[in-house]
Amino acid sequence: MKALRLPSWKSDPVLEDVEVPSPGPGEVLVQVGAAGACHSDLHLMHDFEPGGLPWNPPFTLGHENAGWIHALGAGVTGFEPGQPVAVVGAWGCGTCERCLDGVETYCDRPDLAPVPGGGGGLGLDGGMAEYLLVPAARHLVPLPDGLDPVDAAPLTDAGLTPYHAIRRSAHKLGPTATAVVIGVGGLGHLGIQVLKATTAARVVAVDVREGARDLAARCGADLALPPGADLAAQIREFTGGRGADVVVDMVGADATLATAAACARPLADITVVGIAGGTLPVSFFGLPYEASVQTTYWGNRRELVEVLDLGARGLLRAETTIYTLDDAVLAYKDLAHGTVEGRAVVVPNDTYRP
Amino acid sequence: MKALRLPSWKSDPVLEDVEVPSPGPGEVLVQVGAAGACHSDLHLMHDFEPGGLPWNPPFTLGHENAGWIHALGAGVTGFEPGQPVAVVGAWGCGTCERCLDGVETYCDRPDLAPVPGGGGGLGLDGGMAEYLLVPAARHLVPLPDGLDPVDAAPLTDAGLTPYHAIRRSAHKLGPTATAVVIGVGGLGHLGIQVLKATTAARVVAVDVREGARDLAARCGADLALPPGADLAAQIREFTGGRGADVVVDMVGADATLATAAACARPLADITVVGIAGGTLPVSFFGLPYEASVQTTYWGNRRELVEVLDLGARGLLRAETTIYTLDDAVLAYKDLAHGTVEGRAVVVPNDTYRP
Amino acid sequence: MKALRLPSWKSDPVLEDVEVPSPGPGEVLVQVGAAGACHSDLHLMHDFEPGGLPWNPPFTLGHENAGWIHALGAGVTGFEPGQPVAVVGAWGCGTCERCLDGVETYCDRPDLAPVPGGGGGLGLDGGMAEYLLVPAARHLVPLPDGLDPVDAAPLTDAGLTPYHAIRRSAHKLGPTATAVVIGVGGLGHLGIQVLKATTAARVVAVDVREGARDLAARCGADLALPPGADLAAQIREFTGGRGADVVVDMVGADATLATAAACARPLADITVVGIAGGTLPVSFFGLPYEASVQTTYWGNRRELVEVLDLGARGLLRAETTIYTLDDAVLAYKDLAHGTVEGRAVVVPNDTYRP
Amino acid sequence: MKALRLPSWKSDPVLEDVEVPSPGPGEVLVQVGAAGACHSDLHLMHDFEPGGLPWNPPFTLGHENAGWIHALGAGVTGFEPGQPVAVVGAWGCGTCERCLDGVETYCDRPDLAPVPGGGGGLGLDGGMAEYLLVPAARHLVPLPDGLDPVDAAPLTDAGLTPYHAIRRSAHKLGPTATAVVIGVGGLGHLGIQVLKATTAARVVAVDVREGARDLAARCGADLALPPGADLAAQIREFTGGRGADVVVDMVGADATLATAAACARPLADITVVGIAGGTLPVSFFGLPYEASVQTTYWGNRRELVEVLDLGARGLLRAETTIYTLDDAVLAYKDLAHGTVEGRAVVVPNDTYRP
Repeated sequence: MKALRLPSWKSDPVLEDVEVPSPGPGEVLVQVGAAGACHSDLHLMHDFEPGGLPWNPPFTLGHENAGWIHALGAGVTGFEPGQPVAVVGAWGCGTCERCLDGVETYCDRPDLAPVPGGGGGLGLDGGMAEYLLVPAARHLVPLPDGLDPVDAAPLTDAGLTPYHAIRRSAHKLGPTATAVVIGVGGLGHLGIQVLKATTAARVVAVDVREGARDLAARCGADLALPPGADLAAQIREFTGGRGADVVVDMVGADATLATAAACARPLADITVVGIAGGTLPVSFFGLPYEASVQTTYWGNRRELVEVLDLGARGLLRAETTIYTLDDAVLAYKDLAHGTVEGRAVVVPNDTYRP
Repeated sequence: MKALRLPSWKSDPVLEDVEVPSPGPGEVLVQVGAAGACHSDLHLMHDFEPGGLPWNPPFTLGHENAGWIHALGAGVTGFEPGQPVAVVGAWGCGTCERCLDGVETYCDRPDLAPVPGGGGGLGLDGGMAEYLLVPAARHLVPLPDGLDPVDAAPLTDAGLTPYHAIRRSAHKLGPTATAVVIGVGGLGHLGIQVLKATTAARVVAVDVREGARDLAARCGADLALPPGADLAAQIREFTGGRGADVVVDMVGADATLATAAACARPLADITVVGIAGGTLPVSFFGLPYEASVQTTYWGNRRELVEVLDLGARGLLRAETTIYTLDDAVLAYKDLAHGTVEGRAVVVPNDTYRP
Repeated sequence: MKALRLPSWKSDPVLEDVEVPSPGPGEVLVQVGAAGACHSDLHLMHDFEPGGLPWNPPFTLGHENAGWIHALGAGVTGFEPGQPVAVVGAWGCGTCERCLDGVETYCDRPDLAPVPGGGGGLGLDGGMAEYLLVPAARHLVPLPDGLDPVDAAPLTDAGLTPYHAIRRSAHKLGPTATAVVIGVGGLGHLGIQVLKATTAARVVAVDVREGARDLAARCGADLALPPGADLAAQIREFTGGRGADVVVDMVGADATLATAAACARPLADITVVGIAGGTLPVSFFGLPYEASVQTTYWGNRRELVEVLDLGARGLLRAETTIYTLDDAVLAYKDLAHGTVEGRAVVVPNDTYRP
Repeated sequence: MKALRLPSWKSDPVLEDVEVPSPGPGEVLVQVGAAGACHSDLHLMHDFEPGGLPWNPPFTLGHENAGWIHALGAGVTGFEPGQPVAVVGAWGCGTCERCLDGVETYCDRPDLAPVPGGGGGLGLDGGMAEYLLVPAARHLVPLPDGLDPVDAAPLTDAGLTPYHAIRRSAHKLGPTATAVVIGVGGLGHLGIQVLKATTAARVVAVDVREGARDLAARCGADLALPPGADLAAQIREFTGGRGADVVVDMVGADATLATAAACARPLADITVVGIAGGTLPVSFFGLPYEASVQTTYWGNRRELVEVLDLGARGLLRAETTIYTLDDAVLAYKDLAHGTVEGRAVVVPNDTYRP
């Protein structure tokens, strides 16, 4: 089969012919319906040296995956061939306390996982191929009626990540609350939709690009603002002087983190999703009292069930541009050039339905 | 190997020779270290007709099990032979939303489980044998250092069931709260220990037997009372007129349920664990405002990890009487006659250490 | 000033001239803008004997009140004359643990409250008059911009009561959940709006009246069903076989409670708001495992702040029919005859704006 | 009466004669039984310039207060002269959403509070006098039986502050969790007691002083360690490689914050209580995933009710050294020299009982 593979660190991906994998006991072979191309893949291709991560190329790219069950390894029950599924991307050891809780993103024993801190498309072969080998059935979520793999694939990361970041703060998002979403890109525009679908909180979106602010408004933001010296003051005025209850920073640069801190109120959540490399210096009098600062990473299978449900009901929808697997190299080039509208999704040739 | 089996409904168990099972893909064979004999087994032996449950004899008894990994089926990782483990007893389908959350007690698709609503010792072969076949590694919890299978086995049900019932009310058990435990038997005396170990709430124990009330006091109860016409008034006085915040009824008879309702305050939890067959009529003005009435059933694997941890640290300890597997028939006879001190635990002959 | 007063038990209200009260220390005099007429007032007028409640007539009716600050008693700060406010109706002792938590509905010391278990319009003079004396400033919530007293008054009970009942179950109302609202009257149609505004749960409404089911659909219900032998089966089918996660019974009759129990899934909340006098017999195997049954009563000031916020933003809107204070007797007659559309709201003559 | 007053910024306190205040409407005059001397008072005396805080001297010191009701202002109910009470120290506006929730520490409108962000002993006259004027009855909590004002006073700050910091993380402190308390001084030794009384978590204490580590052990810490290069590794080993679930830093210096970050696991709470002026740089890959960093400030009245309850039951006990009011200047000198054992508590002369 064809597969888009990263041959070595600091290289571009190449389309290669590889063997179709065969599922061993407990494993499942998924026929790929769609695989999202993520910005973090560009980071992966170009910014690491050997030894920088606990695993190495070559491997097939693609960590946002959906498709259909193709073959079940020995001992797997509860699924049948042809059934449409999405793939939970974070693959932990499966036996530590955190994995037993379904929180494989924060596995306590990554040394016992298939690859430490990675998964399909991240050290192991991913979904930019005709078939994807999934190491355990617990990583599969049946697609609800009405949700196509093409729509589901980006939700497994670009939808799941903001969903996790927002839902962990659900108790702070009552009707009088205000949430601020900084950065209205692939994750941000889905985060706004999650907020509107699951809470009655007011939503303020922040982005330097006018088009992104328009997208925020279409997604339901009550207010969309550009960055600037008076941004925190504008948010404070919008909230009757109180400040924001929850800030989700999809960028994570020094400037956006400083904005997050400046517009938060006491007891707020300031949640950092973006990996732009910024730092927020936290000191006792430097932030509002009991404002919590934390990162989040991806999400878990329970949350993916909910994300897909929102997707099937039209409450959460990623903008997508479709590429065939033959054009997958181009997809990443377009992504690098910033010319993709919405999320780039790669569809293997023989499942491609324009 | 020897196994204590229920041959048919309405019969006594018999010790038989059966084949040692062989673990298929995903399965695990556990060498049994100890299997608890539970009152509900007596109910199982004597009170059902064919068709009364979704599964039928013959099967090996024993649903409170701990031992050592003996052999791993294909595809099982994370365990190794000789490792001591306890077995989570509720075996769901493993693929529904509830099972994905680790709540297999309330599996949405029991029709897809190994047996519907049952498990090892409940429709499938249980632990009163030299070996126990466990259908999936997710049902195994490593024993923490310092906890022997004999001490661990009763904790998997008699410890886990009250633990689940109490911990779901943790947010109502602050330092000024009062918890009432009705019935200080196998579950009740462990429930009191759970309350003392995990909360600063006051604990009132209720039991008709003086010895049970003494046991309650040894387990840390602040007050132990017999039932009686003025019981609710005594509890109300002990709580400064307010009533109890949480009542856990380990009996579940009409009279104990009425007591539970009579001593609860508004916003209390009234949780029914015992299956004595009672009914509580709930009406708008018949109970304190927003007092929640619910049953609970067993517990989940996350909670078992915590129960075993308490056990290993000496914070949760079941009284036990040990029988060899050869004497297992006697264990149930003694249980039926009410002559067992603490929990009866059956230990296969060759692992028996007096 | 004019006031609509209940002169004695088992009597009709009469319009009388009474003294305008003068606020003592800590008290506040509110000029009434609107007072809702509630079905429970009919119950109050006709169904009690002397000694049936801990307080007695005569008093002015009206426990759903909003208006403007008229005069502040000594020591009251934080408000100024002319400021629009809504009144939290449950007036507790103010010094017990529950009142200190803002939960005056479940006051621990009702014997120390202005009247035990009552408030303005319930033992003390209420809002069907030109002025209302409020015993403490903590019972007042400023009206948000854009919300008129006429729209706010019914929200203080018909909005607040379902809001409290629903929000206590917020953690069970994720995107894959289903909520069932039984009874689409004054409280039910607002309950549906609360669910749609604050959660992504599916909403099923149940009412025997076709008009009420149409209203449910306009309020956002995903499905509206009449009662019937197959109702629970229909709800179970709608939920993919699982059953409802939350059932709020706005009626509370034997039949509706039985329906609630029949359509609930394990771990559901079954919350009884209506006072039609029904009883649900709760037994271990009679309800799904760990389904919680409880009543709720009214709501607290924090929740009223949120309810009013939803109201001001157009997310929660009661249908109303306005009567002048001179016509208040007629309002209750129409209410008794079932001819009022939406909530009857009484507006004192000189604030009446048609 | 005598009062220990701060005459101006950057000065030592002096004992003066002042008028006994008279309670206005809604106010309460408390006869002081005990007033704790806090390290933060030294900071207050010596480290601020005019304009540095929103209020100015002169005022009477003492923000940890307990005593007896002496006189009630007009309109105050629920208390009677002679009743023993503790004083909640954070006095907010009383009418904003946060104050309505009982969270006056994080008042939204400090400009409307008696003094912005302060209270008795912090801008207003405090408790180092014979009488203390409390501006509202809601700031008073009745002392439970068996708790003397001398024992209660330090609990209102040195007990309440760690209680709030720990209890906000209660859901992360199950039996398998580990809490780390950095700094075993006035707050730290009470924090350890709170952890032992209200959770089954393991407790690791960290302090450079051997005596403080001994105190930690007496308070129930499972392990007490000195700082050092391998501290984080030791904690990680103690937790089976996982790291700490909750870290409470009672110091707040650069080094202790770095330790907190180094020993935390993913999803941990890192809570900063101490005001030693340190900074923790938070970046995406610099901390474990989803470890939350936040400050906390004091606590609220609901929590004080619980703290006093623990105190009355002997589960929470501050070491104290008693000074008469005449010796209060000396108390602060000893405090500055670090020669006080436990908490210094000032007792007005005529209530002094040695």
